[in-house]
Amino acid sequence: MAGKVFFSVSMSLDGFIAPESPDELMGKQWMELQRWVFPQRFFRASLGLGGGGEEGRDNDILRETFERTGANVMGKRMFDAGEQAWPEDAPFHTPVFVVTHEKRDPWERPGGTTFHFVNDGIETALEQARDAAGERDVRIAGGGAAILQYPNAGLIDEFSIALSPVLFGSGVRLFEGVDASRVALEPVLSEPTPRVTHLTYTVRER
Amino acid sequence: MAGKVFFSVSMSLDGFIAPESPDELMGKQWMELQRWVFPQRFFRASLGLGGGGEEGRDNDILRETFERTGANVMGKRMFDAGEQAWPEDAPFHTPVFVVTHEKRDPWERPGGTTFHFVNDGIETALEQARDAAGERDVRIAGGGAAILQYPNAGLIDEFSIALSPVLFGSGVRLFEGVDASRVALEPVLSEPTPRVTHLTYTVRER
Repeated sequence: MAGKVFFSVSMSLDGFIAPESPDELMGKQWMELQRWVFPQRFFRASLGLGGGGEEGRDNDILRETFERTGANVMGKRMFDAGEQAWPEDAPFHTPVFVVTHEKRDPWERPGGTTFHFVNDGIETALEQARDAAGERDVRIAGGGAAILQYPNAGLIDEFSIALSPVLFGSGVRLFEGVDASRVALEPVLSEPTPRVTHLTYTVRER
Repeated sequence: MAGKVFFSVSMSLDGFIAPESPDELMGKQWMELQRWVFPQRFFRASLGLGGGGEEGRDNDILRETFERTGANVMGKRMFDAGEQAWPEDAPFHTPVFVVTHEKRDPWERPGGTTFHFVNDGIETALEQARDAAGERDVRIAGGGAAILQYPNAGLIDEFSIALSPVLFGSGVRLFEGVDASRVALEPVLSEPTPRVTHLTYTVRER
């Protein structure tokens, strides 16, 4: 059985998933948005920050999201920003399919992450990711603008949002340009923790 | 002890609380946004639809929100739209302070709703509402554009959102123009029901 196609992001209460400019990426708003992630044991271990960290539901959800993912898909902007920022042992540990016009040989990193550069669009990237993932799921990793192309094309099965108690006021909106006439949501799970509310929806065509 | 100042709205997952145009107010999106309300016993009884209806947490929350409210404040647009649409026995059953340039005598409706027309701004309207509410709370009732003036002016203590599993794509955004440099949120409660997730936040100045 083929896996699901999903995305999983942290979103501000007013609908933003990233600050306006990449210069602010490590800025205050982004830190507040992601604040629930940093103390988690799974996150600390994956960055090699040593032992320790929280082990509640927030941690379980991070680990489960990682473990279900057999391949990642990302846009060129996320790759370009990450190429500089990720540690050598990039944090995906799966094949990653980058939608880009750049022609480039696969780029293999230690720890099981290999970036493949796909030049003929989002559907081909997804097809290749499905093949690579086998029975596991495909995660649309980002960035902000790339994610929405998939639900708008009818290519997302479900998604999860960690809704953070912060207001951005400006930035990259997750649902900017969503085709609301096409995308209907069925709530699957709403699970509050002390830090965020984890929301999961199945996507249906209207 | 003085009551709190709060608002309570239904919001789509992408941050909208009303469709773009009033013509669509009874349209499909708005119906989906409010779908959790219609089957509730409290709602049915308040519209005189007879007995029956659901009695779970969604119903409790509607009733509690009504009971805590000693006075309402609303903008001119909400009043103008409602003046036509509300039943004679208007659904507030408290003094209502309408922020407007129109000079007009108080308008008393059967059932305890009296509309007072306040011509000198949101702070005066709130002051009068506080006096009328006594120890009970003041609800900023709407509409979409009026609500946000209060948190931006540092005049909201807390708010509640019933987050509905629907995407609007366009319309009136609750947080459009929020002063994010001023408004910080502290999560108080996140309570999922099968229909929506009820979120409550305390507002703090940054």
